[in-house]
Amino acid sequence: MVIRYPNGQTRTDQQLNKHKILEESKKSNFANRGMRFEEAINVSNEYYLNRNIAVVHKKPTPVQIVAVDYPRRSAAVIREAYFKEASTTDYNGVYKGLYLDFEAKETKNKTSFPLKNFHQHQITHMKNCIKQDGICFVLLWFSSLQRCFFFPSHLLISIWETNQRQSIPLTTIAQEGIELTMGIAPRIPYIQAIDLYIQTKENHYGK
Amino acid sequence: MVIRYPNGQTRTDQQLNKHKILEESKKSNFANRGMRFEEAINVSNEYYLNRNIAVVHKKPTPVQIVAVDYPRRSAAVIREAYFKEASTTDYNGVYKGLYLDFEAKETKNKTSFPLKNFHQHQITHMKNCIKQDGICFVLLWFSSLQRCFFFPSHLLISIWETNQRQSIPLTTIAQEGIELTMGIAPRIPYIQAIDLYIQTKENHYGK
Repeated sequence: MVIRYPNGQTRTDQQLNKHKILEESKKSNFANRGMRFEEAINVSNEYYLNRNIAVVHKKPTPVQIVAVDYPRRSAAVIREAYFKEASTTDYNGVYKGLYLDFEAKETKNKTSFPLKNFHQHQITHMKNCIKQDGICFVLLWFSSLQRCFFFPSHLLISIWETNQRQSIPLTTIAQEGIELTMGIAPRIPYIQAIDLYIQTKENHYGK
Repeated sequence: MVIRYPNGQTRTDQQLNKHKILEESKKSNFANRGMRFEEAINVSNEYYLNRNIAVVHKKPTPVQIVAVDYPRRSAAVIREAYFKEASTTDYNGVYKGLYLDFEAKETKNKTSFPLKNFHQHQITHMKNCIKQDGICFVLLWFSSLQRCFFFPSHLLISIWETNQRQSIPLTTIAQEGIELTMGIAPRIPYIQAIDLYIQTKENHYGK
């Protein structure tokens, strides 16, 4: 295919593709690439795993299996199963001996992050992990703004428990959290935020 | 209900129940109670969680969901799904800031633990976690002997990688691992073994 431009210039598909790749690499953002937030986190986890930086995995969706078929010469097929409520957050793992635990959520809102995105079991789990000195946080994605934040769970919990707010204002998140600059690899460089968070914590508590 | 014994004595249900509970508390072993090894670990995890000792969960079985029905007024039903291979071990969590990662396996063998119980993806995952200074181990249950051992993953990995053995001799496990004395609560007191393991490690490496 040849595209004819008003000025008479032409471009081949190949040139167009090159151009497109260049443009995409400029916009270093998973959202522009049609990648969902969760997928972007998963590929970031793969990046960290492959480079021996951290071992973080998404937990499988909990399912109650009721009936399974075992057809001959082929794989077992689950024929009846139900979604169960998770008892933890979605992601956990290890980084330099530290236990990491987090949840990733997105909103289309532009000024605040609705608390309805979180569930009591997640809050309870985060509280338990904090008691054990785990590094607990949430990754918050404002899809309309294309901004992503690391926000410590202990702050989320205290807002959740005051019970007066339906949402966390973006201003609070920007001030108390750590904004992540989206990259190519890793897409969501949350380990950088953890480093900064630990540093701040150590300075704060004089650990 | 009243049971009439040959000697003429009777016992009420209540008395029987009391007796049963007493008997059961004497046999301090999950195996005698018809509880599977995995269940015994799960209730031990609950015990640790409820007492704020550690936060450890079994990961859900990974399932690839293909078709879901949404009947009116009732829960979504998964109608077609397949088992996927896990990319990690079954258990992980946090204890005093430490990342814990383990797999639980059982055998009927009496003299050695067959390595066929483990899979390459589990070994790879344990290696990755060790690189990040996670506490990695396996819980080995000899059901015929009713003996349970904590065995550090780094030893399992080195045996796995020498590739000459089909199994780990019980003598090696007893010597290099830590035997767990089964209890009522927790059934499988693996945190005790972790404490001992960390202590030994610290003495060994002078950390």
